[in-house]
Amino acid sequence: MPRRIVTLTTDFGTTDHFVGTMKGVILSIAPSAQIVDITHDLRAFDVLDGAFTIAQAAKYFPKRTIHTVVVDPGVGSTRRPLLAEAGGQYFIAPDNGVLSLILASGPAKVRHITDPRYFLKPLSRTFHGRDVFSPVAAHLAAGVLASRFGPVIDDTVRLDFAEPVRAAKGQWTGSILKIDRFGNIITNLHIDALSELNTRPFELRIGPARVTRLALTFTECGDGELFAIVGSSGYLEVAMNQASAAERLGCGAGAPVALSIG
Amino acid sequence: MPRRIVTLTTDFGTTDHFVGTMKGVILSIAPSAQIVDITHDLRAFDVLDGAFTIAQAAKYFPKRTIHTVVVDPGVGSTRRPLLAEAGGQYFIAPDNGVLSLILASGPAKVRHITDPRYFLKPLSRTFHGRDVFSPVAAHLAAGVLASRFGPVIDDTVRLDFAEPVRAAKGQWTGSILKIDRFGNIITNLHIDALSELNTRPFELRIGPARVTRLALTFTECGDGELFAIVGSSGYLEVAMNQASAAERLGCGAGAPVALSIG
Amino acid sequence: MPRRIVTLTTDFGTTDHFVGTMKGVILSIAPSAQIVDITHDLRAFDVLDGAFTIAQAAKYFPKRTIHTVVVDPGVGSTRRPLLAEAGGQYFIAPDNGVLSLILASGPAKVRHITDPRYFLKPLSRTFHGRDVFSPVAAHLAAGVLASRFGPVIDDTVRLDFAEPVRAAKGQWTGSILKIDRFGNIITNLHIDALSELNTRPFELRIGPARVTRLALTFTECGDGELFAIVGSSGYLEVAMNQASAAERLGCGAGAPVALSIG
Repeated sequence: MPRRIVTLTTDFGTTDHFVGTMKGVILSIAPSAQIVDITHDLRAFDVLDGAFTIAQAAKYFPKRTIHTVVVDPGVGSTRRPLLAEAGGQYFIAPDNGVLSLILASGPAKVRHITDPRYFLKPLSRTFHGRDVFSPVAAHLAAGVLASRFGPVIDDTVRLDFAEPVRAAKGQWTGSILKIDRFGNIITNLHIDALSELNTRPFELRIGPARVTRLALTFTECGDGELFAIVGSSGYLEVAMNQASAAERLGCGAGAPVALSIG
Repeated sequence: MPRRIVTLTTDFGTTDHFVGTMKGVILSIAPSAQIVDITHDLRAFDVLDGAFTIAQAAKYFPKRTIHTVVVDPGVGSTRRPLLAEAGGQYFIAPDNGVLSLILASGPAKVRHITDPRYFLKPLSRTFHGRDVFSPVAAHLAAGVLASRFGPVIDDTVRLDFAEPVRAAKGQWTGSILKIDRFGNIITNLHIDALSELNTRPFELRIGPARVTRLALTFTECGDGELFAIVGSSGYLEVAMNQASAAERLGCGAGAPVALSIG
Repeated sequence: MPRRIVTLTTDFGTTDHFVGTMKGVILSIAPSAQIVDITHDLRAFDVLDGAFTIAQAAKYFPKRTIHTVVVDPGVGSTRRPLLAEAGGQYFIAPDNGVLSLILASGPAKVRHITDPRYFLKPLSRTFHGRDVFSPVAAHLAAGVLASRFGPVIDDTVRLDFAEPVRAAKGQWTGSILKIDRFGNIITNLHIDALSELNTRPFELRIGPARVTRLALTFTECGDGELFAIVGSSGYLEVAMNQASAAERLGCGAGAPVALSIG
């Protein structure tokens, strides 16, 4: 029996005991679980950042992986804890939209986690990463059936992800999904919907900047030149060679972008 | 036989090879150990931050876990390396007070680690995380008896943790233990000693700020409102909904707080 | 059979899905691999930082460890992916000099990874950490022979590490290799070449600062005093007791240092 993988994706940062405490809870219940950190440096309270990150990473994990996703500004309120099955994997998270992209990517079964036998006691109102999500993940890893945790529901919260809008023929408006560690600007324009980019001239606008070059690699453009590139997840990015395009343009997540293919 | 868990709690940061090197040392001696990062982002040289963090996290780990805690401004001096047994777990750390809260929480047996057979050779004067604490943790994980490492002692360094003082009936003075990742202000006022907070009016003062509301969850107060809340470890915190109370008040660890229950 | 260790050393940071995605790829191919993070906080694009870090950490890992080192500003260009065997360990990295110190430390066999069977498909041009380096590491961990990945080569890129220069008898010029997390200034002057430091007066100059004291431990000097110390890797460092020497001197990696032994 291979060990069950339990991944952690949170906005808890790494300066506190929070993440270590969750690991202790998991290993106390499921000693043979294999814990894998995806990230703990999601922007604080940023459910969209969590939704994007887990959707990118999860598809590379094996079947039966258990993903624990905790960006939880509503902790202690009436928001529900969820256990979702999608793509042969499991996702444990608050019902605040952080699983939106996972649930939009194919058939899924979602349960409202209600059975308090799988929670720590006493149950705090401020740290469900420790008291709810970690022990549920661990009990699942230890072999408890998904159906034990609670009833199937069909009214989960879905985030309105800013989808690109086709304003006119060859005219798209979109937005910035995320700035990555290197300062690359990841837009919500996906190459699957824009295949003509590869063969026709275009102009991508972010604030006053105009980008007209599509590069295949980061290295083919000169220093200081802004270019577009199809990123590793298929989204159109604006980048520079070994420099931060986001810093150069002074832009951040949520800002608008416009694309003309002409 | 489940794998022995070896946790790491340090102020080494994550930009250097220090943490990776410690893991290499541990796995070279105890190949089946399960290494768990608690945090490497303790404030540099801050023994109190280490003491608080390991005390919060350790209680959630299984019996027989080996915790390696390295905040070690006195590395290479005459300060002693310690191996403590407390609560069915093991703690390996410098004798500088970083285990104060662990040792105060119940009966403990503390040894002065003296047997050089369990150190790396040559023994540096500047990196005992690598040369002393990691190999000792690994030898313990590999089955060496605790008694082999050195003699029991009873004169370990204890930090004077600022305990709250009851200045008069219903009047307490305390201090800030820590600012967490979300900007919540964790005070040293613990709910176990202040149960009347739940039923009577109070005023908590930090600098010029006055907090009079006790919230049960982060979400029940409006944007921009400061409130008190009992945190997940039982300490009274000052917080805001999805914003940093510490930034708003401009305060940090060590600053005084005052509480009137009336 | 002990689990194969696969280490990760990258400049990918911890705010994105990049590292989690690599771990998913590895565990999908080699479920029993033991993944160990060395660091993901190398300076972005800084091949020298990667070369220094992996050289410090690798020697403490057991034989047969597989080190995955991804600082890859040339991703997608013609730079080759490498699989090196050195010191009984394996190193998977782009051919940009990041293995320079490892390859300089003893006999090594280096292969150009060419067999696309071991890459993810489709192969992106922007994330070979995911599509090339991780799956190759995992297939190696799962038992594929090194010889399967590609032919032996002998023309790898080597970085010109700034070696200290002996300008005259007792006069050396060198440079700063790295500033560590504590603000200690690590120079490229190694104690093995400078043993007379222990017995004779010296002056170490960084900008306008003059350091003439060699300390054995960080604690033996007063607050605010700059001193030299032989670091845990044998390099001469300039440090302060519980304070940042680099901040005090305003210097960074690459800056020159001069040493007179008199």
